[in-house]
Amino acid sequence: MTVELISVGTEILMGNIVNSNTQFLAEKCAMLGFDLFFQVTVGDNYDRMMSVVRQGLSRSDILILTGGLGPTEDDLTKEVCADAFGVPLEEDAHTREHLTEFFRNNIYRHIPENNWKMATVPRGAVVLDNANGIAPGLILEKDGKTVILLPGPPNELYPMFNGQVFPYLQQKQNAVLVSSMVKICGYGESQVEDMLLDLIDAQTNPTIATYAKTAEVHLRITARAGSRKEGLALIAPVEKEIKDRFKEAVFTTDEQVSLEMAVADLLKQNHLTMCTAESCTGGMIAARMVNVPGVSDVFMEGMVTYSNEAKMRLLGVREDTLKAWGAVSEETAREMAEGGVKASGTDLCVATTGIAGPDGGTDEKPVGLVYMACCLRGKTCVRRYQFKGNREKVREQAMMKSLDLARLCILGKS
Amino acid sequence: MTVELISVGTEILMGNIVNSNTQFLAEKCAMLGFDLFFQVTVGDNYDRMMSVVRQGLSRSDILILTGGLGPTEDDLTKEVCADAFGVPLEEDAHTREHLTEFFRNNIYRHIPENNWKMATVPRGAVVLDNANGIAPGLILEKDGKTVILLPGPPNELYPMFNGQVFPYLQQKQNAVLVSSMVKICGYGESQVEDMLLDLIDAQTNPTIATYAKTAEVHLRITARAGSRKEGLALIAPVEKEIKDRFKEAVFTTDEQVSLEMAVADLLKQNHLTMCTAESCTGGMIAARMVNVPGVSDVFMEGMVTYSNEAKMRLLGVREDTLKAWGAVSEETAREMAEGGVKASGTDLCVATTGIAGPDGGTDEKPVGLVYMACCLRGKTCVRRYQFKGNREKVREQAMMKSLDLARLCILGKS
Repeated sequence: MTVELISVGTEILMGNIVNSNTQFLAEKCAMLGFDLFFQVTVGDNYDRMMSVVRQGLSRSDILILTGGLGPTEDDLTKEVCADAFGVPLEEDAHTREHLTEFFRNNIYRHIPENNWKMATVPRGAVVLDNANGIAPGLILEKDGKTVILLPGPPNELYPMFNGQVFPYLQQKQNAVLVSSMVKICGYGESQVEDMLLDLIDAQTNPTIATYAKTAEVHLRITARAGSRKEGLALIAPVEKEIKDRFKEAVFTTDEQVSLEMAVADLLKQNHLTMCTAESCTGGMIAARMVNVPGVSDVFMEGMVTYSNEAKMRLLGVREDTLKAWGAVSEETAREMAEGGVKASGTDLCVATTGIAGPDGGTDEKPVGLVYMACCLRGKTCVRRYQFKGNREKVREQAMMKSLDLARLCILGKS
Repeated sequence: MTVELISVGTEILMGNIVNSNTQFLAEKCAMLGFDLFFQVTVGDNYDRMMSVVRQGLSRSDILILTGGLGPTEDDLTKEVCADAFGVPLEEDAHTREHLTEFFRNNIYRHIPENNWKMATVPRGAVVLDNANGIAPGLILEKDGKTVILLPGPPNELYPMFNGQVFPYLQQKQNAVLVSSMVKICGYGESQVEDMLLDLIDAQTNPTIATYAKTAEVHLRITARAGSRKEGLALIAPVEKEIKDRFKEAVFTTDEQVSLEMAVADLLKQNHLTMCTAESCTGGMIAARMVNVPGVSDVFMEGMVTYSNEAKMRLLGVREDTLKAWGAVSEETAREMAEGGVKASGTDLCVATTGIAGPDGGTDEKPVGLVYMACCLRGKTCVRRYQFKGNREKVREQAMMKSLDLARLCILGKS
């Protein structure tokens, strides 16, 4: 079965915003096992939108449209789709009630008249309640074709899709889809693909899809089965095989868990506290750790020691070390991490020092050179990396690799 | 004249990556004054790509295709466009030379045979050299229609577009386009639009486009003129009027300058040094400042004092203050900023403390409450904000507003 994604809106068309909704929907539909051949973006114009919808209906089984469901005259998605299906718009009592409720809770003095437009739906449509906004989603079916209309704002679209559309589409596929996400740090995408070539070549059910992120590779294993239990049983041996091949480089099999969450979990499990001592990453590692809700149990503090003076005063790096080896050196990284533990009284400190560029590189110490160290209860590991890319890329890679170093140190695998 | 954007590639179609190329091209084309009605994404499939190209040629003047120019069998964009125009592919001597040069510099042992495919171009095409990769860009023209083929990797696409395609398209528009970017911090998008309603309603040449960013609004003023000088003269009064209305909330009129760069520039101009003392932002402000190349002249250090113990030890916040007012309070924010200046010996310290959520909120101090303070040479300003959104959004807004507070303090406008 084929799905076509249609984005409606001038903001995307003119490049004011990036089309992240389409990526979100495409990934979900691929996961559901639909074929995806076309994505189209069109503006808030009746004729052009109609031409896109008609073409979509002629070449795809399911159309998913996002945007253009609001209260203004520009919002035409519902009108176009109703006309394409030849059904009238009618007021939906349930949606009118939902709107009234929404406006009461949001302390509006009065409801602008044009908002009642959102309570009209094409005759026969399935109405999807919008828990985070006012315009409902809609599903239309006719002659074997399905059109799904969803609101454009991501905070309305994502929960509506996950909660209501995903199960609906899953039923259409006449199968339960079960997937797991294996997240790997420490290997590049092509390395991962090389190491899984036999599995990827042989894949039918479950399938394996790779997603490259900065310093991470995510593998989604998706099985199609008669039941959730059966799906999990299909996934289990593949997941096990991947874990056997990548060992401790696998930091989670939970889609929701990020690298910093994995580090925070390990700290909690091992009753450890942590601090950071950052030069080239300049606070990025700390900022990532603080992303984790409830991290205050394990993350105590961070020191961004950008100047040499700060490295000496806050971390106790010796002037001799800075003079003899330079700020970007194994020795300085080591003293930063050890000094961080000493100054903060935490169990673990991860430290970075490097040349992020674009200036400051030499033949001996080129741009992209980063030393990182992790001191855990008296034992210090140091790593040297030569990263590629611009200042931002170098710093981002250094941040991710430092988090991973902390993780491996706690695991005793560094 | 109308432009249609066509993205080629399975990665976008399946949602493995977000389509940022299309946003980049759309913004540039809008700026050039072209009409944009359709964006299409299609996979590496000859028939489907041909149907998309034929349709594009039937409804748009200029097609810009990205992706599918590589050496593999899957890469078909060039073949499809040559066939659509009815011209053969021929080897281009200049491109062959460029390829040979590229492979020599990249120390390949031998050039894989299929790479010579990239040296063939449709007969009559203008060849655009690829300074950052191997596949050249191409421009085809026939019967008043233009097809532009560009490589997919952003680091190849962006410079090729800016350096070679933009000037070409500008000529097509038979006008010089001059634009300036006014960046505003401290007003929401709808506030900005309200305050410029008369200008936006009356706009013909120059035009004003608004782009909402986190805690910032960017306004692009674009004039179409016979010469650059004439264009600048058209922009100047509009830019001046906007600056008069928003005063110091305008932090730059340079497209390349970010808020952190504006802060770094002000620090340099005023011979000031800076440090940070962060709780809820957890290193984000420091990380942003360190984004600026050469910031080591003015940014010295940062302290991420997530625990109360760290607030006391590193910043000298008094235990009494924490007990009486709590960590999230005006008093604590003030002592953090003042303590930061004292501990670091810098001229300025910006401090944050707040409740990022999702937990930890109370009726009195709800999630999203953030206090920030800036101490500059003995004078301290404190601000209280109640931000909306999830943990990440709260922290990001707090970070931006803190940078802006530092900026306004240096300007003496806080």
